[in-house]
Amino acid sequence: MLEKMFNPKWVAVIGASRTEGKVGRAVLENLMESSNNIEIIPINPKIDEILGLKCYPSILDVPDGIRVDLAVIVVPAKVVPGSIDECGRAGVENIIVISAGFKEAGVEGARLERECISLCEKYDIKMIGPNCLGIIDTSSGLNASFAANKAYKGNIAMMSQSGAICTVTLDWAERIGVGFSKFISLGNKALLAENDFLELFGHDSSTYVISAYLEGVKDGPEFIRISQHVSRSKPIVIVKSGRSSVGSRAVSSHTGTLAGSDAAYNAAFKQGGIIRSDSLEEMLDYSRAFSVYPLPEGRNIAIITNAGGLGILAADACSNKSLSIASFEEGTIERLQEKLPAAANVYNPVDVLGDAGANLYQHALDMVLDDINVNGIIVLVSPQAMTDVPGIAEMIASKIKTSSKPILCNFAGGSRIAAGEEILNVHGIPNYPSAERAVASMNALCNYYSIKNRKQHEPVKMDSDSEFAHYFIEKATSEGIRSHGLESMDILKAYDIPVVPSKIAKKLSDVISSAEEIGYPVVMKILSPDISHKTDVGGIRLNLQHADDVERAYKSMMSDVKHYMPDARITGVQLQKMIDGGKEVIIGMDRDPQFGPLLMFGLGGTYVEFLKDVSFAVAPISMPEAKKMVSSIKTYPMIAGVRGEAASDIDSIVQTLLKVSQLVTDFPEILEFEINPLMVMPEGKGCVAMDIRFTLNV
Amino acid sequence: MLEKMFNPKWVAVIGASRTEGKVGRAVLENLMESSNNIEIIPINPKIDEILGLKCYPSILDVPDGIRVDLAVIVVPAKVVPGSIDECGRAGVENIIVISAGFKEAGVEGARLERECISLCEKYDIKMIGPNCLGIIDTSSGLNASFAANKAYKGNIAMMSQSGAICTVTLDWAERIGVGFSKFISLGNKALLAENDFLELFGHDSSTYVISAYLEGVKDGPEFIRISQHVSRSKPIVIVKSGRSSVGSRAVSSHTGTLAGSDAAYNAAFKQGGIIRSDSLEEMLDYSRAFSVYPLPEGRNIAIITNAGGLGILAADACSNKSLSIASFEEGTIERLQEKLPAAANVYNPVDVLGDAGANLYQHALDMVLDDINVNGIIVLVSPQAMTDVPGIAEMIASKIKTSSKPILCNFAGGSRIAAGEEILNVHGIPNYPSAERAVASMNALCNYYSIKNRKQHEPVKMDSDSEFAHYFIEKATSEGIRSHGLESMDILKAYDIPVVPSKIAKKLSDVISSAEEIGYPVVMKILSPDISHKTDVGGIRLNLQHADDVERAYKSMMSDVKHYMPDARITGVQLQKMIDGGKEVIIGMDRDPQFGPLLMFGLGGTYVEFLKDVSFAVAPISMPEAKKMVSSIKTYPMIAGVRGEAASDIDSIVQTLLKVSQLVTDFPEILEFEINPLMVMPEGKGCVAMDIRFTLNV
Repeated sequence: MLEKMFNPKWVAVIGASRTEGKVGRAVLENLMESSNNIEIIPINPKIDEILGLKCYPSILDVPDGIRVDLAVIVVPAKVVPGSIDECGRAGVENIIVISAGFKEAGVEGARLERECISLCEKYDIKMIGPNCLGIIDTSSGLNASFAANKAYKGNIAMMSQSGAICTVTLDWAERIGVGFSKFISLGNKALLAENDFLELFGHDSSTYVISAYLEGVKDGPEFIRISQHVSRSKPIVIVKSGRSSVGSRAVSSHTGTLAGSDAAYNAAFKQGGIIRSDSLEEMLDYSRAFSVYPLPEGRNIAIITNAGGLGILAADACSNKSLSIASFEEGTIERLQEKLPAAANVYNPVDVLGDAGANLYQHALDMVLDDINVNGIIVLVSPQAMTDVPGIAEMIASKIKTSSKPILCNFAGGSRIAAGEEILNVHGIPNYPSAERAVASMNALCNYYSIKNRKQHEPVKMDSDSEFAHYFIEKATSEGIRSHGLESMDILKAYDIPVVPSKIAKKLSDVISSAEEIGYPVVMKILSPDISHKTDVGGIRLNLQHADDVERAYKSMMSDVKHYMPDARITGVQLQKMIDGGKEVIIGMDRDPQFGPLLMFGLGGTYVEFLKDVSFAVAPISMPEAKKMVSSIKTYPMIAGVRGEAASDIDSIVQTLLKVSQLVTDFPEILEFEINPLMVMPEGKGCVAMDIRFTLNV
Repeated sequence: MLEKMFNPKWVAVIGASRTEGKVGRAVLENLMESSNNIEIIPINPKIDEILGLKCYPSILDVPDGIRVDLAVIVVPAKVVPGSIDECGRAGVENIIVISAGFKEAGVEGARLERECISLCEKYDIKMIGPNCLGIIDTSSGLNASFAANKAYKGNIAMMSQSGAICTVTLDWAERIGVGFSKFISLGNKALLAENDFLELFGHDSSTYVISAYLEGVKDGPEFIRISQHVSRSKPIVIVKSGRSSVGSRAVSSHTGTLAGSDAAYNAAFKQGGIIRSDSLEEMLDYSRAFSVYPLPEGRNIAIITNAGGLGILAADACSNKSLSIASFEEGTIERLQEKLPAAANVYNPVDVLGDAGANLYQHALDMVLDDINVNGIIVLVSPQAMTDVPGIAEMIASKIKTSSKPILCNFAGGSRIAAGEEILNVHGIPNYPSAERAVASMNALCNYYSIKNRKQHEPVKMDSDSEFAHYFIEKATSEGIRSHGLESMDILKAYDIPVVPSKIAKKLSDVISSAEEIGYPVVMKILSPDISHKTDVGGIRLNLQHADDVERAYKSMMSDVKHYMPDARITGVQLQKMIDGGKEVIIGMDRDPQFGPLLMFGLGGTYVEFLKDVSFAVAPISMPEAKKMVSSIKTYPMIAGVRGEAASDIDSIVQTLLKVSQLVTDFPEILEFEINPLMVMPEGKGCVAMDIRFTLNV
């Protein structure tokens, strides 16, 4: 769909300039160094010719025979809408607005940006930017940017929401010879944004790896959907900044992006099969690994080193990343012993000793490559007196080209390993500057192997009495009732979520008769729109065994509550069947501004409060996602059953999660939602919602 | 004490060689490039002269007038003891054994190493090594190593247990011009080890920062003591490898070091005021920061950037490290506004915008340096079109030289920031290659500020009835009783630790009379050396209210236990007063092979089991260490009191920790120890030990 954007025949530069140092000149020069297939048309009303190219006063003046595929706009912000209008009238379908001074610059800029969007919509123009560095496509040979660095051809596609990070990345890549397939500065993402390019990169045959620096996403649910699809064929590595609340503030003042909560991003990235990296350094480390290596089919790693200390550091790093140190087969150990010196360590990590040359390294590498227990190899080289650094680098490079297992290396040191680094660079092979970074990149390869091979699952569609639910929500909305509690538990019944038998009563006689109807023992809870923590005000009484108990409890509760909160409006009490022998869990939902309904699961009480031991996923969720939510909390063993204690009914939790997922997906009106506690009974005995709170958008 | 080792007049090289590529030649050449004050005496029985120096057949042949201060030994392992013996007879007091083939090479090597140790002890010789690279002292101008790189003069002292890591570090340092005061390859640490050099570095006026790569420590308690002292005046940054169990295995096969458990190292490092780094990269990053910067007096950081994206990444990194983004004073913001362009961000992170030159950077830097709310500054520079990289680097370098606050920088990119990097290198200032690494180093500075300024506390000496305790332990030891449980709770009484009223009974009639004596309600627990998890076999009965209850419980317990464990030896039951209303915590101790008694504290039951939410410290502990153990667990709020619930008696936990610390320090015979649970009552009501298990070294 964006074919002509990246592979244009005729490119106009609106605002082309002769003046050195001006963006309008830099863009023109970069275009002139682009492929010979690209024809350039400078547009500038004040001059006739720039750098030997005929210049037109307006895009409307371009001769009829020429169909401009792409216009790059570098004029001041306030005249950009005019330029876009002219593009539209001239039939230009693709534009890149490099100019700054839009949403990022305040209210007037935001207005100008909206004007640009309207014009693009009117003329059906696809726009990148505004406020960006431009784009580079090394396949078509297009450089429509004002980048000062050149991009080498490569298989990594990169997009960035920050122009400066484009600059930093290109400068870094040029220094060590890392190439890109496509390089896109997203700017303010007024129209085209990450989702469009994720899809484009997914289809782009010259792209093997997708990397991105993002400060936010425009359409969260679509982002998850596209990522899920694209990550099946290509690894996606993203740095999402603004993780912290402090960072988030910086994002807002930077490009005006409304950053989603980090928990939502984490959940969305996991569901989308995205590899999240914590820094640019990590993103580039991982992308380079994906760019070069086959995927390891497991997490068993061999380490080869000429320095015991480095081997231990690498082994530590493997353990930190939950990679295993492979156990070699007998045959491997014997064959290593045959050629390595007696003092060498032939177990993993293999220590070929300080005086090893390329031959010994090669022998060790060949042997561990052949071992079926080994999925990937880390080679560590320290520049000792006898170390043939270039020879070892050449040997490793040739092995990497033919190996079906990834071989990541760390030549450690300074000047005396530079020759080795250089050789690897020439072959496009990364030299990781530390054992830890080599191991982290191996881990990324392993993780992507799992992502690529995971089974595809659609979100589960759960049955519900949607008529009742609709009626209920509409009624509450029309009555303007925003906060709901115990009294609204019927909404759960509509989604077939078991609810504790309960009744609401407003005066003593009703209270007793309700208790009798439910059957003893019962629990009594205060009902008040003003009280959220019932325990704090004496608003809960447990284990009431008969009518006398109920009467006494009711009276003392009313007196306690009046004592603690004299002004609270009391709407009655709720009586519930007392449920014993279960474990308390919480299922919640918070509507994230970027991804929508963010589900939460955790064990109740102190576990959630102090340990924050909860899991998240964006609804609607699939069956494996629901199972993963339950099993990924640290306290999972407490409900999975331990030391002879009966296991809880995990399946009923999974079912309830799926039902809540359905409910909050069906009703965007529900802003927050919580079943707390959901009492989970022993295996096979189901679960039952004991209390509920939710907020409607009224 | 090691003065002549590092600043010798006469240095002998035993095993000096003419042959290029031999270690005996490399050492000689390095010595010849040392200070002119050093005189070199090659020792080799086969030749008369090497490289113009007169060569002697043996150190015993050195003329009488010459007093050899240091002998560097590079002969084959099997003749090293002979050489040491000759050194001893010649009155040499300091030797460095570079030769390999000792403990690291197997049984025969270990025997040779012990022989070397005996000889050194006999002649009172101080020995570094064997199996090391040698030492470098840039103050005295000594290079007694076979390192291929030269070391620049600097203020970082470094020691490493791996020769290859010495090589890697020196090579890296030479490339970017990082200097060292002293550089020591520890080798096998047969005699001199980390503790000796920690002390040496502590006194060395040319050393500002102490860094080390360690795989283990020789004397744990002394290591903590020395570190506590030295860390008050100089930062100590250590990479301790073998963190993981996998890594630990690699350590064992590498240098034969028995690696302590990582928890013990973590605790010891914390108590010693050591900054632990996770990788060599981090160690070098932090050491360079300490080498250059003043300490920040707080954790409020200002960020200055010419790229919004980098600023957000830095802010994220600050938040990850619990550094605060400083809030500027009104005046600062106004003064920033005066000179920065309107679109700039004058709040923190300060964005001077992409076209900022050195002047704007300087203005921003001056303003935030002046702000009393700012303790440290991170400056980020991306190479944009107008960016004067060298100018900015020069400006920053000159500011750093006079600033009383640390200014760490990250010039981000490749070729286009190289000129800036070069300028910083020349000034000895680190350029951190990423915002994250600059922030991590700032965090290390902040952490050391707290370490340096912490109050000194001695371990608390607690009173005890040591006579009884001695009698008890001696009796158990002489009787060969290794495992102790409930029946041995009297040992707690000797240390004034409150114990639940309890009695042991062996037959039904005693059981009932014991219960009556204790007073109802009581708890009954099975006593058996074969049963460790009482609950699993029905070996615990709670809340027995009267004699009938006790009788019924006793009978059914005996039948249950026989059913589950027919072969268990049953020595009786214990009756305890039933204690209600407390919270269960655990206090434990495990004797670490390197550090001795490692105390553990955590909340009881599932918290310890599934969440591993525990804290550690090496006994004996001080009062603040005991308090820290209690307050540093994540579940601390659950005993500190929440939501109107009464706080637990934290003080009684602290007291009990100190008493246990005393007990396990007094009796090295106690190998493992656990009070589980210690029932902690509400504030002011104390605590009481409910059960106990410990193991004696019999």
